[in-house]
Amino acid sequence: MAPLGDNTNIAEEVMVAEAEKRPVSTIVIIIAMQTEALPLVAKFQLTEDLDSVFPKGVPWVRYHGLYKDLHINIIWPGKDGVLGVDSVGTISASLVTYASIQALQPDLIINAGTAGGFKAKGASIGDVFLACNVAFHDRRIPIPVFDQYGICAKQTFPTPNLLKEVQLKVGKLSTGDSLDMSPHDEAAIIANDATVKDMEGAAVAYVADLLSVPAIFIKAVTDIVDGDKPTAEEFLQNLVAVTAALDQSVTQIVDFISGKSISEL
Amino acid sequence: MAPLGDNTNIAEEVMVAEAEKRPVSTIVIIIAMQTEALPLVAKFQLTEDLDSVFPKGVPWVRYHGLYKDLHINIIWPGKDGVLGVDSVGTISASLVTYASIQALQPDLIINAGTAGGFKAKGASIGDVFLACNVAFHDRRIPIPVFDQYGICAKQTFPTPNLLKEVQLKVGKLSTGDSLDMSPHDEAAIIANDATVKDMEGAAVAYVADLLSVPAIFIKAVTDIVDGDKPTAEEFLQNLVAVTAALDQSVTQIVDFISGKSISEL
Repeated sequence: MAPLGDNTNIAEEVMVAEAEKRPVSTIVIIIAMQTEALPLVAKFQLTEDLDSVFPKGVPWVRYHGLYKDLHINIIWPGKDGVLGVDSVGTISASLVTYASIQALQPDLIINAGTAGGFKAKGASIGDVFLACNVAFHDRRIPIPVFDQYGICAKQTFPTPNLLKEVQLKVGKLSTGDSLDMSPHDEAAIIANDATVKDMEGAAVAYVADLLSVPAIFIKAVTDIVDGDKPTAEEFLQNLVAVTAALDQSVTQIVDFISGKSISEL
Repeated sequence: MAPLGDNTNIAEEVMVAEAEKRPVSTIVIIIAMQTEALPLVAKFQLTEDLDSVFPKGVPWVRYHGLYKDLHINIIWPGKDGVLGVDSVGTISASLVTYASIQALQPDLIINAGTAGGFKAKGASIGDVFLACNVAFHDRRIPIPVFDQYGICAKQTFPTPNLLKEVQLKVGKLSTGDSLDMSPHDEAAIIANDATVKDMEGAAVAYVADLLSVPAIFIKAVTDIVDGDKPTAEEFLQNLVAVTAALDQSVTQIVDFISGKSISEL
């Protein structure tokens, strides 16, 4: 569960506790790339929101619909207005997480996407991980306390029952805005004890925590970071096939959530 | 001027053009650290907004008031709820820029703060720079076009008349989430041709551009990155003194803006 802020009063805590007992109604699924999002849009039979809940000018896209008893919203940050590529990375991810929570008041956020995996930590191409922990590896602020703020390590919302039901590996996730890995990044990723590496997770977690919305992180391995092949090449080669594995896991997770409350996950 | 998106129709362009001719009414000043913000809060006689325009749970603080004919809002991302340090860096900066534009509809954004300077490019401690260009140096995505998205280089809103009136150096700004500088960062900063290095500017620029709000960037040099002293030590040593120089420049800029339209800057 997202830690409650200092300003949270008892009435709010009671409301949150009650919300945790109601069946989950609205889910926001944050997905950074269109290639990752579209198969799930088809699977859940979602439609694109033409009268956007987001402000004019932003490229963010919402696909939504009712699947079983769940209001599913897939939010994709869209294509960069100038360059035409997916708006990947922590800034877009944090903005869409914030704007989606404000507009849609979800009970749960799922951040789903592809990731690099470390074979030394047991990751293989096509593995799907649920992150038990998230942290940043490219925010080095060597001043006491600021250093911890930069890393921003957090345990994620625990889902013990989901893990019994759905076949997923569990590992720590480390987030940074680069697809490659510099020696400084590598040292930080090792310090974070991470098995998977992505470009959005810890940013989504930061915003979800700020606004006290539980969030889970599903990451499928497209490339082995500590392997022989160049990351960018391996990533592009495996993107479509691994996305199929990711989408299958996300569907299983959503099926599991249907009819359950947050506290039953 | 922020580039207009594809969806912008002619009516909107006319509105923007007309807004540029009206005197500036509302300014949002984004400042990452309390130490940097408070002297300006005192100077402009602003008061803290107790009935926040921001959602519950976020630590973001708004100081506001009328100074001459201008509605001034200083937005400080506040202290981290868990660790108690200033919420520095690109994620907080982009979130408060987004939320401030949504809540306050400013005519202009000023991102003011301290920065590291490169003596090889002519920077000295205490210099105050107006950034003519912003870019990121820690978002390496070595896939064609994605690489440019990561760097996200942008010319800033031009203010030729302001530069004639107010004594400021002009240089390119490079942004990243680390206070230190790794060899990879250094190579990217050199490629960005940057004279100053901060932790927020390009993130504020990204969001301001997305929402078509003009933004300017005022950065005062607290430490020499290519000098002999460790950055963190030099930064903390000079923070208070350099903030005085920063605040003097921001005051001169605000005085200059008073009574003028965006197109007269």
